[in-house]
Amino acid sequence: MNIILFERDELVSGRLTLRDHRARHIVKVLRSSPGDSLRVGEINGRRGRAEILSMVKKYPFMVELRVDLTTEADAPPVIDLLLALPRPIMLRRILSQVTALGVGAIHLINANRVEKSFWEAGITDEAEYRPHLIQGLEQAVDTRLPAVYLHRRFRPFVEDTLPELLHGYESFVVAHPESASSLKECLANRKGRVLYGIGPEGGWVDFEVERFMEAGMKDFSMGPRILKVDTATVAIHGRISQLLEEL
Amino acid sequence: MNIILFERDELVSGRLTLRDHRARHIVKVLRSSPGDSLRVGEINGRRGRAEILSMVKKYPFMVELRVDLTTEADAPPVIDLLLALPRPIMLRRILSQVTALGVGAIHLINANRVEKSFWEAGITDEAEYRPHLIQGLEQAVDTRLPAVYLHRRFRPFVEDTLPELLHGYESFVVAHPESASSLKECLANRKGRVLYGIGPEGGWVDFEVERFMEAGMKDFSMGPRILKVDTATVAIHGRISQLLEEL
Repeated sequence: MNIILFERDELVSGRLTLRDHRARHIVKVLRSSPGDSLRVGEINGRRGRAEILSMVKKYPFMVELRVDLTTEADAPPVIDLLLALPRPIMLRRILSQVTALGVGAIHLINANRVEKSFWEAGITDEAEYRPHLIQGLEQAVDTRLPAVYLHRRFRPFVEDTLPELLHGYESFVVAHPESASSLKECLANRKGRVLYGIGPEGGWVDFEVERFMEAGMKDFSMGPRILKVDTATVAIHGRISQLLEEL
Repeated sequence: MNIILFERDELVSGRLTLRDHRARHIVKVLRSSPGDSLRVGEINGRRGRAEILSMVKKYPFMVELRVDLTTEADAPPVIDLLLALPRPIMLRRILSQVTALGVGAIHLINANRVEKSFWEAGITDEAEYRPHLIQGLEQAVDTRLPAVYLHRRFRPFVEDTLPELLHGYESFVVAHPESASSLKECLANRKGRVLYGIGPEGGWVDFEVERFMEAGMKDFSMGPRILKVDTATVAIHGRISQLLEEL
């Protein structure tokens, strides 16, 4: 936790009273004392510092802070993720990892090789997935939550939603090991927003790749090595970030 | 498991008899039958196909294969990792992820912010870490195990071992959020082998960065976002791979 984040309605007259895992973290991990200053931020808002006014260092922990927000939130990241819904344990890790790396939006979509049961898992509820996004922000010292969208049916998504969505991007690419193109060719020296797509374990089926191509997306391969979804999602974010930095 | 791997001494007169998790995988996940052909490979050796001669589809599982190895192992990856020993649960994940991405060697080193207890964890024994490397190979359809080296003392490593080690590389870079250089500047259009260094949670201390610089390594930053060790290790592998592809 490299920044203490809070919800807007937790702040009352510039004061914040924490009694949950954040209070515990301040006591047990940071080992702070009254008078100490901490990095804080309002979720989807500004960052700043907070001074510890009072605290209870034993369970049940309590930390009272006077908050001074001074820095506007960073501009939203220019990379968004289109991800075939992975199994819940992997989704949790990916959500916090890509939030830490920086994504503006995460579109979770259905695909032939997505197990139906994944859509019934609790992690598709905002109350369940939001804490993993917040973990990523706490790690990366960011305040801006990625937007998460769930698209439970592939065909309506790809035919009705995707073409409209792509207007918001300069580049839209989908990882597909059988492609003959490289990522660099697909980005084609275009500055601006990028949407990148990652398939399910076992990959996209041909029908899905064809629909993406029809919608105007470009497919790319990174060579013959087959990667797990979480590894691919993070490694490709790194590759796209590197390419964008060079423009 | 995208390839079934075996040790050289398991192969007897071109036949392989599996009775462990690999047999279970062939029965339960691949749902194969006698006569089916599978992708197989000898660890640190050649790849090929195997035909199922006979099998027991109930516990205790057994699969007998006739093996035909035809393809030489890939050349070793040109990227190696220098990693401050992370906590065991994270090390396991990193070992399989970087093996899947492709690394030739993994140097695990001590650092000021490495907890001493991590060196006592079972995962630093070859018998414990090797299965995680093999998992990465099974994922990526590779046969070549990365070499793993443990350097339990920072100073002898950086003063005696590292300068010699660096002769094997064209580029040697170390991630350090406070650096003013980009990764691209550090690689400087050099083809060839790259060693990249990732610090512990909390980062390298100044003394360590100074020793790396003295040994000739270059530090780089990817901006202000603070990443977990596993996220950074995978994302930077992606960035280096992207840069090398463009040379």
